[in-house]
Amino acid sequence: MTTILNEADQTLFDSVCDDAREAMLLQTIADTMEWDGQTGLPTKAGDYRADQVSMLRGEVHAKRTASSYGDRLIQLAETVKDADPHSDVAATVIELHRDYDRNRRLPADLVRATSMATVRGQQKWEAARKADDFSLFRDSLIDIVKLKREAGDCISDGTDRSCYEALLDEYEPGARVDQLQATFDSLRGPLVELIAAIKDAPKQSDVSILQRSFPIDAQREFSKKVSAAIGFDFQRGRLDETSHPFCTTLGPNDIRILTRFEQHWLPGGLFGTLHEAGHGMYEQGLRADWFGLPPGSYVSLGMHESQSRLWENQVGRSREFWTWLLDDAKAAFEPSIDDVGLDSFYHAVNTIRPSLIRVEADEATYNLHILIRFDLERQLIERHIEVADLPDAWNARYESDLGITPPSDADGVLQDVHWSAGLIGYFPTYTLGNLASAQLYEAAEQSIGDLPDQISRGDFGPLADWLRTNVHESGRCYSSDQLIKKVTGKPLSAKPLMNYLTLKLSPLYGLV
Amino acid sequence: MTTILNEADQTLFDSVCDDAREAMLLQTIADTMEWDGQTGLPTKAGDYRADQVSMLRGEVHAKRTASSYGDRLIQLAETVKDADPHSDVAATVIELHRDYDRNRRLPADLVRATSMATVRGQQKWEAARKADDFSLFRDSLIDIVKLKREAGDCISDGTDRSCYEALLDEYEPGARVDQLQATFDSLRGPLVELIAAIKDAPKQSDVSILQRSFPIDAQREFSKKVSAAIGFDFQRGRLDETSHPFCTTLGPNDIRILTRFEQHWLPGGLFGTLHEAGHGMYEQGLRADWFGLPPGSYVSLGMHESQSRLWENQVGRSREFWTWLLDDAKAAFEPSIDDVGLDSFYHAVNTIRPSLIRVEADEATYNLHILIRFDLERQLIERHIEVADLPDAWNARYESDLGITPPSDADGVLQDVHWSAGLIGYFPTYTLGNLASAQLYEAAEQSIGDLPDQISRGDFGPLADWLRTNVHESGRCYSSDQLIKKVTGKPLSAKPLMNYLTLKLSPLYGLV
Repeated sequence: MTTILNEADQTLFDSVCDDAREAMLLQTIADTMEWDGQTGLPTKAGDYRADQVSMLRGEVHAKRTASSYGDRLIQLAETVKDADPHSDVAATVIELHRDYDRNRRLPADLVRATSMATVRGQQKWEAARKADDFSLFRDSLIDIVKLKREAGDCISDGTDRSCYEALLDEYEPGARVDQLQATFDSLRGPLVELIAAIKDAPKQSDVSILQRSFPIDAQREFSKKVSAAIGFDFQRGRLDETSHPFCTTLGPNDIRILTRFEQHWLPGGLFGTLHEAGHGMYEQGLRADWFGLPPGSYVSLGMHESQSRLWENQVGRSREFWTWLLDDAKAAFEPSIDDVGLDSFYHAVNTIRPSLIRVEADEATYNLHILIRFDLERQLIERHIEVADLPDAWNARYESDLGITPPSDADGVLQDVHWSAGLIGYFPTYTLGNLASAQLYEAAEQSIGDLPDQISRGDFGPLADWLRTNVHESGRCYSSDQLIKKVTGKPLSAKPLMNYLTLKLSPLYGLV
Repeated sequence: MTTILNEADQTLFDSVCDDAREAMLLQTIADTMEWDGQTGLPTKAGDYRADQVSMLRGEVHAKRTASSYGDRLIQLAETVKDADPHSDVAATVIELHRDYDRNRRLPADLVRATSMATVRGQQKWEAARKADDFSLFRDSLIDIVKLKREAGDCISDGTDRSCYEALLDEYEPGARVDQLQATFDSLRGPLVELIAAIKDAPKQSDVSILQRSFPIDAQREFSKKVSAAIGFDFQRGRLDETSHPFCTTLGPNDIRILTRFEQHWLPGGLFGTLHEAGHGMYEQGLRADWFGLPPGSYVSLGMHESQSRLWENQVGRSREFWTWLLDDAKAAFEPSIDDVGLDSFYHAVNTIRPSLIRVEADEATYNLHILIRFDLERQLIERHIEVADLPDAWNARYESDLGITPPSDADGVLQDVHWSAGLIGYFPTYTLGNLASAQLYEAAEQSIGDLPDQISRGDFGPLADWLRTNVHESGRCYSSDQLIKKVTGKPLSAKPLMNYLTLKLSPLYGLV
């Protein structure tokens, strides 16, 4: 720990860190209970589990909003105000104070009500999606949107932020809607153009290769092997299955990734695992001695997504990756793809085609799904539309933006868990992550001489090290914008992603 | 709820119940964390998990020992002192007060130290067993025994109980060592005689039938099917795998049983699952509206074990059970036991033979393993032997009582997890359970007319209902002794178990 504090301040600082670590201990317990809730909870056990989690979340909130804790932070904030804000000690104080301020703005009743509403919301959403009936979820979502508007108002009160911006700030600290909108606008034009060109391109992929039979057991074993090969540490984590894949951190040495496998769709499980492993490697790359404190925490969800997307797409969908892996894949799924050559396989995993379901979308059209959600959730929070209007608004945007009409709500507005879980302001971080993954990978390629060669040999160590050193180990001592600028020398933009997509896809589709 | 309280007392009673339920909410969270710790925790995640569990156990203990809680209980105890002690309200007050008194006697520091020592203890035990080296576990066990002696002294202080009795009381409330010793002594003679007769009996079983190949996947599916058939409710529970099988209650509708399967030993997984399902059905049979309170709690570990043993042995090892199930078993494991007839199979699952490992022992010799542990742990607590003497003392008893010399500590003194987990006073409850299972089954047979016929048809409803009505739904409104007397008309004795064993085994082994 860099010492910039005198003895008394150091004691104060240590006591604040102890409290933050204790809150994290409780938070990871709650997260374990939720992980368990997603991996085979008996059907009738949901209510009691909701009580358990809600009690724990309440305790975490109480710890993080205790005046005795905040008073010490306010005092320390004064002490470090002239220190390097990126030093571990100063960043700890600044970020914990920022979290405290944010948490204090949320009344305990609102936190409790939101926790209950979102646990139930997810159950209602699940039932509504199963029954393909939005009306079963509508009232729940009305409650949730009301609670989130209330939260946004509490957080933005007296600041220059809008209500939506206040919600966004939870996932992407410091992000501003105008800047986000400008970046997304600069992406939309060239992206739509590329997707249109690919639609009518002379060379098309044969995606049916990936729809052959890939037994679940073999997929499980193969995905585990590949995620270990890129650097996910199974002594400090595990891989499980669930209906909605995610990654969760239950301790400094307990990072869990969850995926799902379908027998007749190889990319779902395989790239899903690479994606979650990327998230997991970010968490495993954080400094464990700062666990539960800002220097040992991720920067933002956008930055988190950049790590998952980089391994899933920049690495996992590259020709070099399949140069290394295709023979192993053939052996693992023998005889399903014995007849498939590298060119066909590589093209198949880079199939670009507008589709209904975000989580199944390719890396180009994916961003169009996000832009729709970003617009709709902002309109919801800003009261330009109401929950009852959502299914129609959703379908209209899918027609205009992707040229597809969802045949049902289950495959339309009900496809994502996020809103049912109260995650509003979360969606834009996915596209921020896509942009950052391309920009970081570009910088990594420039810094590491023969990255493509390494990948085609299955040597992922230098890339993983570069990410750990440049991104993970910085923790939250820099904001997302600052870190991107520091590591790549440029502010975040849509250019690297468009360059990457164009350079890869144009030759594949015979556009050059 | 039976109302025997005036309005003010009712309010007081409700507030006490709320507190007890909140403590249970935390306890089930801790139990979920431990369940998770036994089902695939990443190898490096143990330390943080220990911190999480220890924090939660500390919070539970604090809630259950708060003076504000105890003062209300003391006041209520006065109120109900003339009421029927077996009524729900009176039993709630009496038992919660009993727990409070017990918990208050344990200093928070001792509870915390024991929690830490036993989490570490289990890790050390695991390593020692793996390395077959008792010395790796010795210092840990010395600490644990010291802490348990201290706990026993605190609890027995000023009472007429001995230190060991105070520990035993946690698992078997109200049990007295003299009475236990007398019952065990009356079992030992006839049991040793029967085992000796079987050893030299004219007819012997062919146990190799059960050592053929039984693929794990098929065992898993078969065990699940059989446990559902006897009445374990999978909407309110689940079955998982672990190295040391157990059953744990994580909520009123979340009862989890854990087992382990070995490809070349069918009884381990199958009877192990029946055993844990019996535990699980007890928990599922408790009154859910009293969850977390004495009327919705099990009586004692002995009574709990009676439920698991009854399904495992009285039912699961009966000729009628296999009349029903053998064809299904043949189909599930085809062609492994296609050639095996009912007589051979029935004899094989009733093989009686002195062996090294308690958890693999048959239902007769099993009790000899328990008598050894009961004697040794009492001697340890009473300072007649020390931890360093334990391996030799253990081996000496196995030679004299079972005629077997353990070839290694791993298969000797290191075989059980209990002492490493601080469970001293726990072992005798296994044999109490065996005695009670026979006595209860005898009463059930008399009460239910055609029980054997029902079992041979796979109709387990009447037996399950009888157990629920007579045992489960009483909760902890009766002590173990009282309940046995109430249900069977007689105090607990060794006779029903000896009758049951003799009647079944004598003809099987050609002894009549």
